[in-house]
Amino acid sequence: MDEDAGALPPKHQFSEWYNNILWRAEIMDVRYPVKGLYVWYPYGFAIRKHVYQRLRDLLDRDHQEALFPLLIPEQEFMKEAEHIKGFEDEVYWVTHGGTTPLDVKLALRPTSETAIYPMYALWVRSHADLPLKIYQIVNTFRYETKQTRPLIRLREITSFKEAHTVHATWEEAQQQVETAVRLYKEFYNGLCIPVMISKRPDWDKFPGADYTIAVDTIMPNGKSLQIGTVHHLGDHFSKTFEIKYEDASGEQQYAQQTCYGISERCIAALLSVHGDDKGLVLPPKVAPVQLVIVPITIGKRHEDVIASARSLEQELRQAGFRTKLDTREMRPGAKYYWWELRGVPLRLELGPRDIDAGKVIAVKRTGGKVSFDREDIKSGVAGVLAEISDAMRQRAEEHMKDRLCSVISIEPLTAALNDGKIAVVHWCGGRPCGDAIEEKTNGSILGTDVRSAYVPSTEGACIICDKPGKATLVGRVY
Amino acid sequence: MDEDAGALPPKHQFSEWYNNILWRAEIMDVRYPVKGLYVWYPYGFAIRKHVYQRLRDLLDRDHQEALFPLLIPEQEFMKEAEHIKGFEDEVYWVTHGGTTPLDVKLALRPTSETAIYPMYALWVRSHADLPLKIYQIVNTFRYETKQTRPLIRLREITSFKEAHTVHATWEEAQQQVETAVRLYKEFYNGLCIPVMISKRPDWDKFPGADYTIAVDTIMPNGKSLQIGTVHHLGDHFSKTFEIKYEDASGEQQYAQQTCYGISERCIAALLSVHGDDKGLVLPPKVAPVQLVIVPITIGKRHEDVIASARSLEQELRQAGFRTKLDTREMRPGAKYYWWELRGVPLRLELGPRDIDAGKVIAVKRTGGKVSFDREDIKSGVAGVLAEISDAMRQRAEEHMKDRLCSVISIEPLTAALNDGKIAVVHWCGGRPCGDAIEEKTNGSILGTDVRSAYVPSTEGACIICDKPGKATLVGRVY
Repeated sequence: MDEDAGALPPKHQFSEWYNNILWRAEIMDVRYPVKGLYVWYPYGFAIRKHVYQRLRDLLDRDHQEALFPLLIPEQEFMKEAEHIKGFEDEVYWVTHGGTTPLDVKLALRPTSETAIYPMYALWVRSHADLPLKIYQIVNTFRYETKQTRPLIRLREITSFKEAHTVHATWEEAQQQVETAVRLYKEFYNGLCIPVMISKRPDWDKFPGADYTIAVDTIMPNGKSLQIGTVHHLGDHFSKTFEIKYEDASGEQQYAQQTCYGISERCIAALLSVHGDDKGLVLPPKVAPVQLVIVPITIGKRHEDVIASARSLEQELRQAGFRTKLDTREMRPGAKYYWWELRGVPLRLELGPRDIDAGKVIAVKRTGGKVSFDREDIKSGVAGVLAEISDAMRQRAEEHMKDRLCSVISIEPLTAALNDGKIAVVHWCGGRPCGDAIEEKTNGSILGTDVRSAYVPSTEGACIICDKPGKATLVGRVY
Repeated sequence: MDEDAGALPPKHQFSEWYNNILWRAEIMDVRYPVKGLYVWYPYGFAIRKHVYQRLRDLLDRDHQEALFPLLIPEQEFMKEAEHIKGFEDEVYWVTHGGTTPLDVKLALRPTSETAIYPMYALWVRSHADLPLKIYQIVNTFRYETKQTRPLIRLREITSFKEAHTVHATWEEAQQQVETAVRLYKEFYNGLCIPVMISKRPDWDKFPGADYTIAVDTIMPNGKSLQIGTVHHLGDHFSKTFEIKYEDASGEQQYAQQTCYGISERCIAALLSVHGDDKGLVLPPKVAPVQLVIVPITIGKRHEDVIASARSLEQELRQAGFRTKLDTREMRPGAKYYWWELRGVPLRLELGPRDIDAGKVIAVKRTGGKVSFDREDIKSGVAGVLAEISDAMRQRAEEHMKDRLCSVISIEPLTAALNDGKIAVVHWCGGRPCGDAIEEKTNGSILGTDVRSAYVPSTEGACIICDKPGKATLVGRVY
């Protein structure tokens, strides 16, 4: 809907690249007349649809999808003290219906604990009702005063998947935290996005949680992006909202809870981690168009080539591939550019000579050409799409490995962060040393108990106080 | 999640039946602590998912799905005079972010014209960009002061599908109105819900439209429920929002627009039209569970029957039927009751004798038993599900026919409405006679230009002034 004008900035100018790709590939329109609110273009929405369908497929194995109201009455929102502290500065309040002031102010959910848990208090009665595992995918709101960024820092988070589980014991909730972490790893593996998993420092956990496990990835500029969190809520909320169950011996017990969320930052990561100087590169599993067929027609053979291309399209569609035949009146080169920008994994070229030879030429978005026999096209395409996924996963992992380093003193730590690295240091776990690390480096402690194939879980002297410390991730963050 | 206590009221006590079925079948929980906001239980959400997937499938033929922000700045919302008049009393306003008053008040969208059209003004440039056909499925908000009702009259409409199209000429927009009406008919035919289509009187059209075509159905109590509307917007909004295109001769022209919407009232109609004294009856196309298998296990043959039932379940799932095997430790009769309440179209019973005889017993939710040969189960089930759809459609149409009548004077009109009928009268089309009809009968004029197999489009003397009039639907409405 916008015209391509000028060239896409190179990927190493990441911020310009990101702002450009969003409108050039028709992902988001940033011109909506309110700061921090953006419009999903149809193509961006189609990517979102496939990504969230994968998330639903994973969750639907043993969660149930439901839907709770957006508006939370002030008295419910104000029940849990830690939670209020964490969110009160950034909650939007509805105060009027028409010109009438409301009796009770209504918060736009920044997250839904206080909308869902009053209902859980009604729903949970006995140990037989547990575990309860429910999720919803909804819009949530934060009055962000920092700089907003499409898909990354928003005032309307349009696509928040939040799961809320209830368990009989603290240990069962802890196991659910681990299950959720595995589920998120599987989700991001499907998107070919490598992640770092760690336990957030205590001052950075979710307001009202016992602890928070975070899923981060590294963006092309070396900054860390939080793309998922899993919280053990203990009984903080169950005590506030009176979520109790009768145990096997007939006693009333407070339930133990977890919650875990993923927002459209997963799309920000998807676009940013894989894109290149030519545009998006989309993993086949979530690409709205997996295959584009570009007919190369010359003179008299025009009809003939188009007919062949149509039958190819039909065959590939029937085989389940999301296929697009591009018959627009444009030069083939302009079509290549158009579909490369939009990240289509595989382009099929079909000209008169290919038809005569019984061949189809395939060009991978990740680089390289293949020639298929026309009659083996379906298995050929399936194989090459799998290769593309593998290549994307491998390239993204290489990038992450390159961005990680280990340092043992403050000066090189600052230098590493300035250089766009995420660093592993040893840290004693104390708040004063944590604050010192963050202040001296202008970085953030991502977390301890790191789970990453590239970060050995060593022990060593704290980078500040020299006392025994654990491997800790430090980086600049979004 | 709630326990079945007592019995479902009979369907002819419709209001009690409706309120009961919502929690007994776990559709909506009405106990959320804000008036007019409700919670979708997982089972209700699953019905919603299948219904809206059908709607998406129909729209995706030639519309694109997108997503626009919820929050509309006051200055955009206040641009179109008729539109403001129609909505200003029922708009929720966000006035604060945290404790800070906002510079610009933000409306929660009651509908999205004023969120979408500023973007369309940027997107539409030339006749080559037209037609533009976009839809979204979103939550919208109305500060209802009338009595609220789950799925019918809400303060948060959680599931509003709204399409917004842009065309070069008034006639093309008119054709799109017809296309949308056909699409809605197809949608409701899939849900086995008969509809009446008519043109709303001028004073009841969408605020800012040239005219409104409405889709209504008749609820079990004889009240009409509006379950879809299609609006020809002319150039009212394009002039307000400066949506212009360059025509083939290089002139700037104001675009012509339509919009059309369906809310979760489609679910209200689905539950109400088909349900009976035993509970829901869901059309196979949208039933979250199409087949439930109840194993009848007796003594020693327990393992044997369960194994057979599992292999039956697997086979039917692989064939694409949404199948549930119920192995809970409950009496078969209690399971029958449970699944009948939830509207599952077909129940398969499998006991030792059936296994020995190579048979499966099937009980239709619409009544009647069938015996299948085990080896022909897939085609047997497919055939019976189609029969169930047909039977449901036919029964619903009979109901609509029974509720329609023609009258030629005011007294019998009032009597007919009191008797739970929708009446066809002749009306001159004038506002004074329209007001008189509505006041005298405590009813509403649904519309003229009626399209229904059961309403002949006759002409006759106006029921009030005796001047020439057209067939017009009058009823009590939700």
